[in-house]
Amino acid sequence: MISKLKRFLIGRPMKSHELAGEKLTKLKALAILSSDALSSVAYGTEQILLVLMAVGFASLWYSIPISLAVLGLLLVLILSYRQTIYAYPSGGGAYIVSKDNFGTATGLVAGGSLLVDYILTVAVSSSAGTDAITSAFPVLHSHRVLIALVLILALTILNLRGITESASILMYPVYLFVLAIFILIISGGYEWLTGHVHHVRAAYGISVPGISVFLLLKAFSSGCSALTGVEAVSNAIPNFKIPSERNAARTLMMMGIILGIMFMGISFLAYVYGVAPNTRETVVSQIAAATFGRGVMYYFIQAVTAVILFLAANTAFAAFPLLAFMLAQDKFLPNMFKVRGDRLGFSNGIIFLGALSALLIVISGGSTDQLIPLYAVGVFIPFTLSQAGMMKRWFTKRPSGWQLPFTINTIGMLTTLTITLIFLVTKFTQVWIIFLFLPAVIFVFYKIHGHYQDLADQLRIDIHVEKPEKKGSIIVIPVAGITQVVRNTISYAQSLSDNIIAVYVGFNEDEIRKMEQKWNDWDPGIRLVVLRSHYRSIIRPLFKFIDTVEWKTSATDHVTVMIPQFITKKWWHNLLHNQTSLLLRAYLFARQDVKIATVPYRLKK
Amino acid sequence: MISKLKRFLIGRPMKSHELAGEKLTKLKALAILSSDALSSVAYGTEQILLVLMAVGFASLWYSIPISLAVLGLLLVLILSYRQTIYAYPSGGGAYIVSKDNFGTATGLVAGGSLLVDYILTVAVSSSAGTDAITSAFPVLHSHRVLIALVLILALTILNLRGITESASILMYPVYLFVLAIFILIISGGYEWLTGHVHHVRAAYGISVPGISVFLLLKAFSSGCSALTGVEAVSNAIPNFKIPSERNAARTLMMMGIILGIMFMGISFLAYVYGVAPNTRETVVSQIAAATFGRGVMYYFIQAVTAVILFLAANTAFAAFPLLAFMLAQDKFLPNMFKVRGDRLGFSNGIIFLGALSALLIVISGGSTDQLIPLYAVGVFIPFTLSQAGMMKRWFTKRPSGWQLPFTINTIGMLTTLTITLIFLVTKFTQVWIIFLFLPAVIFVFYKIHGHYQDLADQLRIDIHVEKPEKKGSIIVIPVAGITQVVRNTISYAQSLSDNIIAVYVGFNEDEIRKMEQKWNDWDPGIRLVVLRSHYRSIIRPLFKFIDTVEWKTSATDHVTVMIPQFITKKWWHNLLHNQTSLLLRAYLFARQDVKIATVPYRLKK
Repeated sequence: MISKLKRFLIGRPMKSHELAGEKLTKLKALAILSSDALSSVAYGTEQILLVLMAVGFASLWYSIPISLAVLGLLLVLILSYRQTIYAYPSGGGAYIVSKDNFGTATGLVAGGSLLVDYILTVAVSSSAGTDAITSAFPVLHSHRVLIALVLILALTILNLRGITESASILMYPVYLFVLAIFILIISGGYEWLTGHVHHVRAAYGISVPGISVFLLLKAFSSGCSALTGVEAVSNAIPNFKIPSERNAARTLMMMGIILGIMFMGISFLAYVYGVAPNTRETVVSQIAAATFGRGVMYYFIQAVTAVILFLAANTAFAAFPLLAFMLAQDKFLPNMFKVRGDRLGFSNGIIFLGALSALLIVISGGSTDQLIPLYAVGVFIPFTLSQAGMMKRWFTKRPSGWQLPFTINTIGMLTTLTITLIFLVTKFTQVWIIFLFLPAVIFVFYKIHGHYQDLADQLRIDIHVEKPEKKGSIIVIPVAGITQVVRNTISYAQSLSDNIIAVYVGFNEDEIRKMEQKWNDWDPGIRLVVLRSHYRSIIRPLFKFIDTVEWKTSATDHVTVMIPQFITKKWWHNLLHNQTSLLLRAYLFARQDVKIATVPYRLKK
Repeated sequence: MISKLKRFLIGRPMKSHELAGEKLTKLKALAILSSDALSSVAYGTEQILLVLMAVGFASLWYSIPISLAVLGLLLVLILSYRQTIYAYPSGGGAYIVSKDNFGTATGLVAGGSLLVDYILTVAVSSSAGTDAITSAFPVLHSHRVLIALVLILALTILNLRGITESASILMYPVYLFVLAIFILIISGGYEWLTGHVHHVRAAYGISVPGISVFLLLKAFSSGCSALTGVEAVSNAIPNFKIPSERNAARTLMMMGIILGIMFMGISFLAYVYGVAPNTRETVVSQIAAATFGRGVMYYFIQAVTAVILFLAANTAFAAFPLLAFMLAQDKFLPNMFKVRGDRLGFSNGIIFLGALSALLIVISGGSTDQLIPLYAVGVFIPFTLSQAGMMKRWFTKRPSGWQLPFTINTIGMLTTLTITLIFLVTKFTQVWIIFLFLPAVIFVFYKIHGHYQDLADQLRIDIHVEKPEKKGSIIVIPVAGITQVVRNTISYAQSLSDNIIAVYVGFNEDEIRKMEQKWNDWDPGIRLVVLRSHYRSIIRPLFKFIDTVEWKTSATDHVTVMIPQFITKKWWHNLLHNQTSLLLRAYLFARQDVKIATVPYRLKK
């Protein structure tokens, strides 16, 4: 039943060699890996305008130079990550680059930030998707948490079906969004060029009293929140079709170009339409309404925007399992993240991501706005580390023509470092928790690593010296009477050893005498030891006896306790038996060196 | 920790031979076994008056002859059960008597009714106790269910401490109640004799228009609800000190005398004080107020009445486990009811009774009034069957002088049968569920019995013919690498058999080649079989392989799967391992005939 449900939800299991078919074309990879970055278009410009609006409408013209600065940073990041892709063709996220150049500790800072960030991404994006749904259908507003959980569950299942399948489905909304924004930019631009736009706008280049460098930096850093998600491609190189690094690099460039055009376009239109940010309507909505009026095209843009905001989560689903796999390979995360599931994805990573973000949704009651600044800091820390790592790499290796890429990485590093610092300073009250959380995550990484190392030390064997020890064997069989189960168990024990003791726990002399008599009559060829229990416990006297046997013989013999157990035909039959064998097994398992063999005897009715 | 808590709540475990010290003196037995019956005094008269009041105040004088009739029935029941005690000295409740004389099916009807009835008793009594508490402290009214559950829990723990200990504590409130009611009756009677009572009362012997035989019968049967609990002594004979049957018979007589005096006394005082039943104040409260005024004595009577109503539950706690033990001995209930706990009581019966009555409280939300008629029917069915059984016994055996006891049992049987029928007719809407419930309980009895018989058939062995089979042995060891765990497991396997196969599941050729090479270098003296897994499952290929081995060799060999398992030092370390061995064990356990040996390897750090 459960297995059928699993087949229905996930699909048939796939053979390992089908992995090659699970690689992504550039078109699909772009859709999956860019949804996070592209979705930033829906709120990036707005973030800049919101900061500027603190000074007044007149200052809104600053959004144009600030957007250009963001565009510049985007260019630097894209070029910088393009270099990373070629330098680390087997997948070079911030974790790999930092680790390779600055050592494990720094790598873990980058990796830990990113892992946490991906979880935040899913929580924030599914909340955004929920908001879009409840805006359209206000009656659902009281079910926000439930809706967000259903969205996360749907994404989790879709990703468990495998990356190509989820890409095949999810590429449609992504490209529809790109199409919609391009139509908007072209139509809006045409309106402006043909002189049909007569909105009041801030005069360009006028100096505004009250504007400060701090404010401009804050606006800039807010705009940079549009750049989260650029990281994803470099993490996911192994998911690309061969030649994977070239395909990844081209996908990254494509993403940069599309993102750049869309972001600048929206910022430009917002300016020429004189859009001021407000709490009732988004900037994109205002531009769309001004361009098309509130008709079919307007609602189409609103709908695909809602979908893309939600689908940003999918980038995390593509990148998180790969990053977790890398950390697990280096033994900083549990082995389970290394296992490929039925559909060749790293199922445990997918499920873990889904579960943790769902937990975050439940804890926050579906209000994840507070998480957004945290999420931006979480991205810019690895950005900075990754580029610093590349700087060091260029400077250490100094291949011919290293100066240009070194310069690019240096500019990128300085910019992202600045943004990180601006975030920390301007939004400290919202992001301080990262100073608790990140060390905690890294502590867990090291604890896990420590355990795996201890384990390896204890399990390691010198194959030339350490052969299996030669030992004798002694078998103890607890018996409660003379039955087919006992007969079967003794037959089994006799096939393994000549040194067998049957043990019987008696509560009164009468019982014991009868048992001894019957045992002698039966004469199964092994001796019976009788224990007397004054407290009516079977487990305790047996336990003591086994202890004694072990203490006497364990140096020379392996001690086995053989537990006869019948298996009932129906589950409720188990309620009719005292389950002594299960209890005994649990007790014994908690002890050193006794081997436990369960001898099943299946009842036929 | 848990063990310490248990010691604190229940006390130290007791040795089996201490059972003799756990027997009850007459004084303690009377307290424990009569609380149900004696508590009826608190509401028996009221039940009669309530029915009569339907016709009017003038009819209340009928309560005197009706009470006398109830008294007569009490006499018959006491004499009748006294005979039963001597006839079945090892404990003769309705179950034993019916079974012995009419066969198992009838016995189960009586036993089933009583079991259900004891559960109802606990639920109803703890609700009554809760009502008394919330009447005194109205703020607690919203916590009724919780209070009832706490009361049940307290009684359960007290009974788990052993019967003598609970008797030593509970005898005080019982005898205080008896004392209080006797003081009330004597003082009230003195007031009346000295002519200080001038209340308006119904004229005695005046015929009242509207009174019918049906109504009188209904009033009589309602009054008979005071007789529930008479059964308990005969069920609990084994709990008495030796000579147990004589002590039980005397205790029963004492109980009858005390109950008779108290019941008649209250009925008489209610009449002479002209008490009319009403919903605001109980009859006993009215009498006490009229006799003493609302002073210390009045509140004392109210308090002990509340306690005794609650302690009626304790009778069920004394009788239920014994009855369940008898049914379990006859294999109609699970074996667990036969096990004596640390304090020599049948702990499982006590816990089961507590749990089921608690469940009933939760389901009914603490309102158990609806259960009272059900409870009365549940008592009178076994009363009737038990006396019919005694009739048959006298008639079949015909010892000298059998006519008198036969007559007593006949009168008793006819009366209780009549009362049962009156209950069924007058309160059908409240008791019909017994016609569903009783057959269901009996069906469960038979299902359980059937399983135990099937089990016995399958386990039975002819000790002269069926000796343990001689077979060979083959051991399969799944290995994941060459480690200390594997070394330890092979050493163990080699101590048991020469026929050992190590099995390795590989995912790719590279891995497999390395493993084979390393195995050959190690040369542990057993051969390695390599399985290839295309679906990355370790379990499924192993499973198939074991299947093949078993199919080929199980006729001549015992097949053992030996599962190496390391035991981690800290619980959270388990999260870092894939638990393949647990999964494999669970899978294999679901199959025929493969023996599973778990070979623990304890990690030291």
